[in-house]
Amino acid sequence: MSVPANLNIVPFISVENMMDLVVATGVERFLVELAGYIEDDFRRWESFDKIPRVASHSRDGVIELMPTSDGTLYGFKYVNGHPKNTNSGLQTVTAFGVLSDVESGYPLLLSEMTILTALRTAATSAIAAKYLARKEARTMALIGNGAQSEFQALAFKSLLGIDRLRLYDIDPGATARCRRNLERFGFDIETCISAEQAVETADIITTATADKHNATILTDNMIGPGVHINGVGGDCPGKTEMHRDVLLRADIFVEFPPQTRVEGEIQQLSFDHPVTELWQVITGEKMGRSSEKQITLFDSVGFAIEDFSALRYVRDRVSGSTSINQLDLLADPDEPRDLFGMLLRRQALLASAC
Amino acid sequence: MSVPANLNIVPFISVENMMDLVVATGVERFLVELAGYIEDDFRRWESFDKIPRVASHSRDGVIELMPTSDGTLYGFKYVNGHPKNTNSGLQTVTAFGVLSDVESGYPLLLSEMTILTALRTAATSAIAAKYLARKEARTMALIGNGAQSEFQALAFKSLLGIDRLRLYDIDPGATARCRRNLERFGFDIETCISAEQAVETADIITTATADKHNATILTDNMIGPGVHINGVGGDCPGKTEMHRDVLLRADIFVEFPPQTRVEGEIQQLSFDHPVTELWQVITGEKMGRSSEKQITLFDSVGFAIEDFSALRYVRDRVSGSTSINQLDLLADPDEPRDLFGMLLRRQALLASAC
Repeated sequence: MSVPANLNIVPFISVENMMDLVVATGVERFLVELAGYIEDDFRRWESFDKIPRVASHSRDGVIELMPTSDGTLYGFKYVNGHPKNTNSGLQTVTAFGVLSDVESGYPLLLSEMTILTALRTAATSAIAAKYLARKEARTMALIGNGAQSEFQALAFKSLLGIDRLRLYDIDPGATARCRRNLERFGFDIETCISAEQAVETADIITTATADKHNATILTDNMIGPGVHINGVGGDCPGKTEMHRDVLLRADIFVEFPPQTRVEGEIQQLSFDHPVTELWQVITGEKMGRSSEKQITLFDSVGFAIEDFSALRYVRDRVSGSTSINQLDLLADPDEPRDLFGMLLRRQALLASAC
Repeated sequence: MSVPANLNIVPFISVENMMDLVVATGVERFLVELAGYIEDDFRRWESFDKIPRVASHSRDGVIELMPTSDGTLYGFKYVNGHPKNTNSGLQTVTAFGVLSDVESGYPLLLSEMTILTALRTAATSAIAAKYLARKEARTMALIGNGAQSEFQALAFKSLLGIDRLRLYDIDPGATARCRRNLERFGFDIETCISAEQAVETADIITTATADKHNATILTDNMIGPGVHINGVGGDCPGKTEMHRDVLLRADIFVEFPPQTRVEGEIQQLSFDHPVTELWQVITGEKMGRSSEKQITLFDSVGFAIEDFSALRYVRDRVSGSTSINQLDLLADPDEPRDLFGMLLRRQALLASAC
């Protein structure tokens, strides 16, 4: 049992700790190592407890809990999605998560996961594309240049060697910012004035838009043979990014079908429409891309195991580090069954201090 | 929208903060005020999103997530239950929770909930007994004298005027400790050598044992007419405390039937065995105790709304307090869509500091 010596303490990775870890590691190396953890966990997919995330929907957004366990560790993430938040200067998505010891039930780590979610989403997209895009792919259209866009670009660069980007967003300011942020990373970047222009010559099309409704970012005539589509933004009931006809022409790959059929692009299709689980492609059980002309679609919604992998990764990275915070989160009476006595002793201590 | 001015910050009630709040308030006043919040929320039961808690079972215990929302606030609790933990000096139950703003999805408070869970469980038991026990009840048998026992005793004292206790535990040391901890609170306490002896003359029988298996703490011949049973320890599939015949003689009151039928004493009964929901007794829709001879049973398992009420209560109590901690939990870029830019600016800052 790996419980910290100070039983009341849970190590805490704050936003600043996470930024410093990413900066010290380098974003690209971080993405590559994180992808390694995610791939390892996808390879042992069958050893995990899996349920669709537990969603609480409201008018303007959703709050979700995403738990999973491999029998040794338990992890969960809290994440919200509120597209209108940006109007009031807030993040669309914020997240934090906990990794725990299954044997004792004690939390081992609390971590910010807003930044970490952006990284793991991009890493998972790049893993999928590694198995599904054409081997010679070098050009990616990136439609939707919000908070997720730079992470996607760098994950595809570091895992697949994608070095040509075609950016488009309905907000030109977002595209300009994305381009500026990515300048130092050695991409050849084209700014486009429409989604149609962005997909021209693209080997891979990534959609990462944020509106909470059914949109049609991609129509059938925009998708040429051999393209891999990385659909990131359609991840909620009533929130999709592409026309149904695109889905009908593509071979579709998903994380966890019971969740994706409710939340992903395939909510537009019948519940028995054939899909392939990504983990089976990674283990070799199922085929990924089978021809040069095939259209492949990774219908990404984000699954709990990816967050579990991300928590495992950062825990290994910060293990033994004295630079992270220590939270007094767990009551630890001198005698475990004497929780009430702990209150009495605190009372006596406070009284004697007066 | 009630989001803190510093968007990255989430107020945090540590274990020490919680102890100080309870001590400053006084345990009895805390229980009475907390019971007020719980009763208020039970009165508006129908306005809550309700699901059975999401459990991850393992060989030695369970880790659970308990979310709920009233459409304005969202709350969830993480809680584990590992009966063998005491063997290695750990708590059987540890918990923490979060209260969030539904409109933005932003967390408003992170709090320890090991102590708070003990308090809300006891407060809920006392609320149920207020409606279900005979009005003249003064004597309570308390079987199982572990971490929950003193909280139960004080909740029943402060809400119902119960001032005679009959204690029994298979571990005499636990009983001695419980007795010692309660001495200053003005109870008339009897130490008993068996559960049978403890229930003699008792108006209310509280069972709060911790073994994770089906036990028979109460058998049919131990239960006289007019008794109210407060069954606290049977709260997990395969973990019950009383013989099925006791259940068949009692009128049974529960928190949330879909959860209690799986986790409570009534897992021993058919799925359509009649039960009454406690909230309906509180609103007056359903009758509580209907005769002096009736045997009533509150089959307590603990429901998410009680934790939500508890988080609401402590949030109101610490609101504006400068003595609690502030966690840097939420990424807050200058420009909300520029999460990646925040990393770049951190990198520049760290580079310039070298």
